[in-house]
Amino acid sequence: MGKRIVVALGGNALGSTLPEQMAAVKKTAGAIVDLIAAGHDVVVAHGNGPQVGMLQQAMTLLTRSDPERYIHCPLSVCVAMSQGYIGYDLQNALREALLDRGIHKGVSTVLTQVEVDPDDPAFAHPTKPIGAFMTKEEASHLVETREYDVMEDAGRGYRRVVASPMPKAIVEIESIRDMVEAGLVVVACGGGGIPVFRTVGHHLRGAAAVIDKDFASCVLAEQLEADTLIILTAVEKVAVNFGRPDQRWLDELTLEEARRYLAEGQFAPGSMRPKVEAAVRFAGSAPGRTALITLLEKAHDGIAGRTGTRIHQ
Amino acid sequence: MGKRIVVALGGNALGSTLPEQMAAVKKTAGAIVDLIAAGHDVVVAHGNGPQVGMLQQAMTLLTRSDPERYIHCPLSVCVAMSQGYIGYDLQNALREALLDRGIHKGVSTVLTQVEVDPDDPAFAHPTKPIGAFMTKEEASHLVETREYDVMEDAGRGYRRVVASPMPKAIVEIESIRDMVEAGLVVVACGGGGIPVFRTVGHHLRGAAAVIDKDFASCVLAEQLEADTLIILTAVEKVAVNFGRPDQRWLDELTLEEARRYLAEGQFAPGSMRPKVEAAVRFAGSAPGRTALITLLEKAHDGIAGRTGTRIHQ
Repeated sequence: MGKRIVVALGGNALGSTLPEQMAAVKKTAGAIVDLIAAGHDVVVAHGNGPQVGMLQQAMTLLTRSDPERYIHCPLSVCVAMSQGYIGYDLQNALREALLDRGIHKGVSTVLTQVEVDPDDPAFAHPTKPIGAFMTKEEASHLVETREYDVMEDAGRGYRRVVASPMPKAIVEIESIRDMVEAGLVVVACGGGGIPVFRTVGHHLRGAAAVIDKDFASCVLAEQLEADTLIILTAVEKVAVNFGRPDQRWLDELTLEEARRYLAEGQFAPGSMRPKVEAAVRFAGSAPGRTALITLLEKAHDGIAGRTGTRIHQ
Repeated sequence: MGKRIVVALGGNALGSTLPEQMAAVKKTAGAIVDLIAAGHDVVVAHGNGPQVGMLQQAMTLLTRSDPERYIHCPLSVCVAMSQGYIGYDLQNALREALLDRGIHKGVSTVLTQVEVDPDDPAFAHPTKPIGAFMTKEEASHLVETREYDVMEDAGRGYRRVVASPMPKAIVEIESIRDMVEAGLVVVACGGGGIPVFRTVGHHLRGAAAVIDKDFASCVLAEQLEADTLIILTAVEKVAVNFGRPDQRWLDELTLEEARRYLAEGQFAPGSMRPKVEAAVRFAGSAPGRTALITLLEKAHDGIAGRTGTRIHQ
C-alpha cells in the first residue's frame, strides 16, 4: 500500500533568513505529514542556496576579522553547517506536525556526503553563483589569492561561481536505509549533500562545488529503491511551450516524450530543465518507478494521481 | 562479548580551528576504531566549546554587517551548525580509519536535540562562558539590548555567560538506537546536544544554554542501555588529593567511595568534578553499568581493565 517516497524541497521554499525559515518549515512539514498520514515512508532532501550563502558570508567575515586565527572556511564545510542549521528547524517542524496529528514516528537528520567525480566536466566550467555580491576589486582579489572563479551578474556586481557536478553516490546510504526501514522519517542530502571526492586510500576530500538537490535526490531515491521521487517546484505542473499562446500543461509524460521535449529545449535551463532531467533519470532507473513534479501543497493530491506532472516508463 | 559503549569526547580534543580539527579527529578516530575492532558497538558524543564559540562569533559579525537582514542567531542554532561542522570531519575520520583497517561499518552523524527543564535552577545562575572576549562597553550593550548575562574574566575582558542545565532526555533517541542496533557507528549529542524545552503542545523551543557533554553522554548512555560510558579527559586516571604530596591515583571506585570523595570536594569544579558526577550517575543507573574515566589513547586499555579509573556499583 504505502510507497517509499523521496521528496526534494527547494532551498527557496525554506526562506532565506532565520524567521523566514521557521515559518517556511511549518508549511512544508504540514504537506509532508499529509504523505506520511496516507501511509507512505518519506525521506526529505532539500536545497540550501540562501542558507549556505548566509553561512559563507558569516565565515568570510570571521576570516577577515582575524585572518591569522581563522583560515578561509571551505564551501564543503559551509554545506555541512547548513545541514545542521536547516535540519534542526525542519526535523522539529516535522516532529511537531506528526505529533499534532497523533503520529508517533521518530524524525532525524543525517549529515550526508555525496560523492562526485573529480573529472566531472562541470569542474572545468563553474556556473553556479554562490554567496554575496562583490565589487570588481573584491572579486579580482579573490581570483588572485584564492583562485576563485567569478562572474558578473548584470548590473548587480560580481559573485563567486562554483562547479555543479553530477552526484555519483550517497556516502551515508546505509544509515539512511536502516533508518527508513526502522520506520523513521529521515532528513538527508541537505543542500544536495556535502560534495566529496575519493582521493588516495579511503580518504574523502571536500570539493568546492554545490550539487543540484534534484539530482542528489534522484541518486538518493535510486539507492533507496524508492517508488516515487517528488520534485517540488513553484508550479503545479510542467508545461510545454511555456508562456506562449500554445502553452500546454502536462499530466503524464513517458520517458520518450520527456526526452523529446528536453531535446527540443522546452524547459528553462537552471530551472525546470534539471528537474525534468532528474525525473527522467529516476523514472528510467528501474521498472515501476515514477517521478512527480508539482507544488508543495499539491504533493498529496499528486501522489493520489489527481494533479502534477507524472513521468514514468 | 562486545559491549555497547558511549564515548564522550572533549571539544578541546577536537581543536579550535579548521586545520586543528582535521588533525585532531584523525587521532581521535584511531582510538575509537581500536574499540570497534575489539568488537564493541560505539556511539560517539562530543563537546563543541571552541567550535560553537567560533560560529557564534561569525554569526555575530554577520548580524553587525547587516542588522536589517540578519537577526541575531540564537545559541541553539549555533549548536546545530556546530554539529554539522564537527560531525562532518569526525564521521569522515572514523569512516576512513575503519576502512583502513578493513572494517566495513557505516558511520553517521545524527543531529541531536536534548530536552532540558525550563525550571532548571541553572537558568537563574548562568555560569558557562561562551564566545569571544568583549570590552566593558560591548558587554553592557548586550546586557541592555539582548538581556545577556556577562561575566568579567580576570584581566581578559568580558564574556557572555549562559546557563548549563541538566539534560533530561535525548529527543532523537529512537533514531540513534535503531542505528546502533543496525550495526552503525553513530556520532550524536554534539556539543551536549541542541538544548530545547517543551512549550505548548508538541513544540520544542531552543534554549539559550549549553549542556555539559559528559552529562548529555550519561543520559544518552542510560537511554541506550549502554554497558559502559567512557569519559575522556586530559589525565589517565582520577586522583584524590590532586597536586598534594599524598596524591593518589584511583583504579576503581564504588559509587559510595565516589560520592564520599565528591562530598569532600576532592575534584575541581568545571573540570574533574562534573566528569565524576556523570560517571556516578551512569554507574548508579542500573546494575552492571560501568563508567571509565581516562585518556583518549588509553580508552582501549581501560576497557580491557588495564588502566583508567573505573566507577561501578
